[in-house]
Amino acid sequence: MVESCNTNMSLAVDAFVQTNQQRFLDELFEFLRIPSISTLPEHEPDLQRAAQFVADRLQAAGLEHVEVIDTDRHPLVYADWLHAPGKPTVLCYGHYDVQPPDPLELWRTPPFEPTVRDGNVYGRGAADDKGQMYTHIKAVEALLAAHSTLPVNVKFLIEGEEEVGGASIAQYVPLHTEKLRADVALISDTSLYAEGIPTLCIGLRGLIYTEVECTATARDLHSGLYGGAAPNAVFALIELLSKAKDSNGVIQIPGFYDEVKPPAAAELESWHSLPFDEQQFLNHEVGSTALVGEPGYSVLERVWARPTLEVHGIAGGFTGAGAKTVIPAKATAKVSFRLVPEQNPERVIERWREFLATNTPQGTRIELRVLSASPAILVNPDHPAIGVAQKVFSDQFGRPTVLTRSGGSIPIVGEFARHLRIPTVLMGFGLPDDGLHSPNEKFKLENFYQGILTIAHFLEEYGA
Amino acid sequence: MVESCNTNMSLAVDAFVQTNQQRFLDELFEFLRIPSISTLPEHEPDLQRAAQFVADRLQAAGLEHVEVIDTDRHPLVYADWLHAPGKPTVLCYGHYDVQPPDPLELWRTPPFEPTVRDGNVYGRGAADDKGQMYTHIKAVEALLAAHSTLPVNVKFLIEGEEEVGGASIAQYVPLHTEKLRADVALISDTSLYAEGIPTLCIGLRGLIYTEVECTATARDLHSGLYGGAAPNAVFALIELLSKAKDSNGVIQIPGFYDEVKPPAAAELESWHSLPFDEQQFLNHEVGSTALVGEPGYSVLERVWARPTLEVHGIAGGFTGAGAKTVIPAKATAKVSFRLVPEQNPERVIERWREFLATNTPQGTRIELRVLSASPAILVNPDHPAIGVAQKVFSDQFGRPTVLTRSGGSIPIVGEFARHLRIPTVLMGFGLPDDGLHSPNEKFKLENFYQGILTIAHFLEEYGA
Repeated sequence: MVESCNTNMSLAVDAFVQTNQQRFLDELFEFLRIPSISTLPEHEPDLQRAAQFVADRLQAAGLEHVEVIDTDRHPLVYADWLHAPGKPTVLCYGHYDVQPPDPLELWRTPPFEPTVRDGNVYGRGAADDKGQMYTHIKAVEALLAAHSTLPVNVKFLIEGEEEVGGASIAQYVPLHTEKLRADVALISDTSLYAEGIPTLCIGLRGLIYTEVECTATARDLHSGLYGGAAPNAVFALIELLSKAKDSNGVIQIPGFYDEVKPPAAAELESWHSLPFDEQQFLNHEVGSTALVGEPGYSVLERVWARPTLEVHGIAGGFTGAGAKTVIPAKATAKVSFRLVPEQNPERVIERWREFLATNTPQGTRIELRVLSASPAILVNPDHPAIGVAQKVFSDQFGRPTVLTRSGGSIPIVGEFARHLRIPTVLMGFGLPDDGLHSPNEKFKLENFYQGILTIAHFLEEYGA
Repeated sequence: MVESCNTNMSLAVDAFVQTNQQRFLDELFEFLRIPSISTLPEHEPDLQRAAQFVADRLQAAGLEHVEVIDTDRHPLVYADWLHAPGKPTVLCYGHYDVQPPDPLELWRTPPFEPTVRDGNVYGRGAADDKGQMYTHIKAVEALLAAHSTLPVNVKFLIEGEEEVGGASIAQYVPLHTEKLRADVALISDTSLYAEGIPTLCIGLRGLIYTEVECTATARDLHSGLYGGAAPNAVFALIELLSKAKDSNGVIQIPGFYDEVKPPAAAELESWHSLPFDEQQFLNHEVGSTALVGEPGYSVLERVWARPTLEVHGIAGGFTGAGAKTVIPAKATAKVSFRLVPEQNPERVIERWREFLATNTPQGTRIELRVLSASPAILVNPDHPAIGVAQKVFSDQFGRPTVLTRSGGSIPIVGEFARHLRIPTVLMGFGLPDDGLHSPNEKFKLENFYQGILTIAHFLEEYGA
């Protein structure tokens, strides 16, 4: 039994969660069965279904003013409970959309048929973010069920475009600053540093996502008849992209690192004290024969505090089974940059555009399309909500809470900072090997229930 | 009216072809409607239909011993007419399979609904090789219809795997050298040097077709959480392939050019005298803003007499619409080499394998699969059949026949040389802008009929 500061009030919440474990899980399964893949237009109806599911569960939990808000793409869901005058307001955010499940053949069980194995729920969205977001709804339900009131005011804003750049919520927030006014935002879309270690994430990398398209010829050409004289769009794109990053992972775009600042000495020092087993990381998380990256930086620095360039996908020419001897006319790559604090997305995009123009291979035309851009975030660790979160999290897990960064991007944190002028508590319950965006994504069942309790107790303590 | 050496016999043939023009075209349309795409397993029944079509037309033309020969993949078709004792034997070869038609959206009319526009037949296979191969069948039909006999002995061997490496015919030929015994092979699968210029091709580049697969990690990874430390299969493949060829098109594989010999001085000199409009080639054939390739070589040398490395297609990671932030676990590219005389395919494959092993990026595994390999071919221009072909071709088109090479590969020419010890007359009627392997492939109608007559007269003169 974990030592904690739980009051009698907390114990009532704990009992409710304990009693309703199976129902909470059944509901999560129903949520996970909806293939709400936001990037694929054919799943549009599933996004609608997922939004409606969230709205219905918020209503059932006791939230008020529940709305499914139409947007240009996938709906937002809003709800609130505002009957705690004088108490702070917490804005809970999450997303109901998920990444595509491909490559499908690598899933042990189908991505949209959730399954429990070895104490984990397997399914696309289990951890990112359906399972984690659902802890907020169940925490509020448990508090209201136990006490018929909440210790703080609560607003929910849930989106369906997190995996595709979040354009609709980015439009919505600045137009509804009064409606969304709050003291702090709360998001569960990150991971524990390691199993059992309560972790608050105070830094996120930014993200610029682009498409680079290379056109060489008016049509595909016969490689026998034209090979040696005609430009090849696939090879030109290969040549161009290979120049953007060297074999050590150092980005070769002029000026790219100009604004990059190292983390504060104290932050760096605390990272060095975190348990980190490079062999375990290599074998069980990355699953490769060697790590790569910039010399002179630890692995944590490389993934938390250094910018990157990644090619997420490339397509061009004939890629079916067998042989086709074409010189391809066109090729496309998806290229992103992860940004660290101080890097300005617009400036990076400009440098990327100049790099592509300067290095365009002979006989080709390069088109750059920017799909999304958001800066990096650092939260001030001295904010009172961070202090409360740190204490509750430590109590619930029985170990001191660590402050880390994440290499990932949660663009909405930047929107909340810019337009609502509030910090965000990033209190996540995933594990590093949950396989976000990968086949066999999972969420540890125990963390699902611990998450519900931790969120409930955070709201209690923050309102105390 | 073209001046020619036509005898009365020839005139009867010409009259028969003239009378039957529409029927010949209707038959060709029926042939072109069969989507006999040899590389796609789902078209297996179409390959069977195309083979049966060829067999039926050979039978109808008056050939004997017509056989559809089962193989491990797509059938061969054989037929003969051997009632000209003391006369030479001509082995007619062609292929009934075609390249995939993609990208479909670039076709003005559907690839398998042949259409006549501006005196051309448009459709996949119109020139490569259904339309050209059909000239042989119609030439024999016309000769037999006009004279109830043939001036030479004739054998047909037609395959359905030319576009996928020709494994079945390559197995069949060495096991049936007696059945296939002939004095010369005749193939119409090349082009006129330019419209109206009769052209015999005496050299073909060889081809090695490979797949290179790069595996970096056990699964796709989240680029936020692992970007900067995990190897990326797509970028690794980009890095690796970019090292194989420099921006001038010079292949960087050690020893690759060791066996490459320049063409004879006389051959080079004759090429320099050929009409060649680089701007026209760039604008109307290649359709780009600039040509590329090795400095110090003319365009004709680059496409006829220099080896190449081309990437025909590349695939890896997320390539759907929108954004997915994965670090891809796997990527594959199709990479071929065109070879020139003296280059040994096995040696080139060995050097390629070594290059890939030496340059394998950190944290990745590279697998090389060789799909096909055939050497380059040079035919001796002093062979009697070449002389007859040159004369007949000149007579039919009213201009001197030029001797050229082609940058393409017809592997069967090498098999005939090696196992039957016969040269091949490459007498093709395509045009350089026919769009082989491309959308809107076409065959000039006039060349279809001229081709039938030229083949018929070649058989007459060769038997005289």
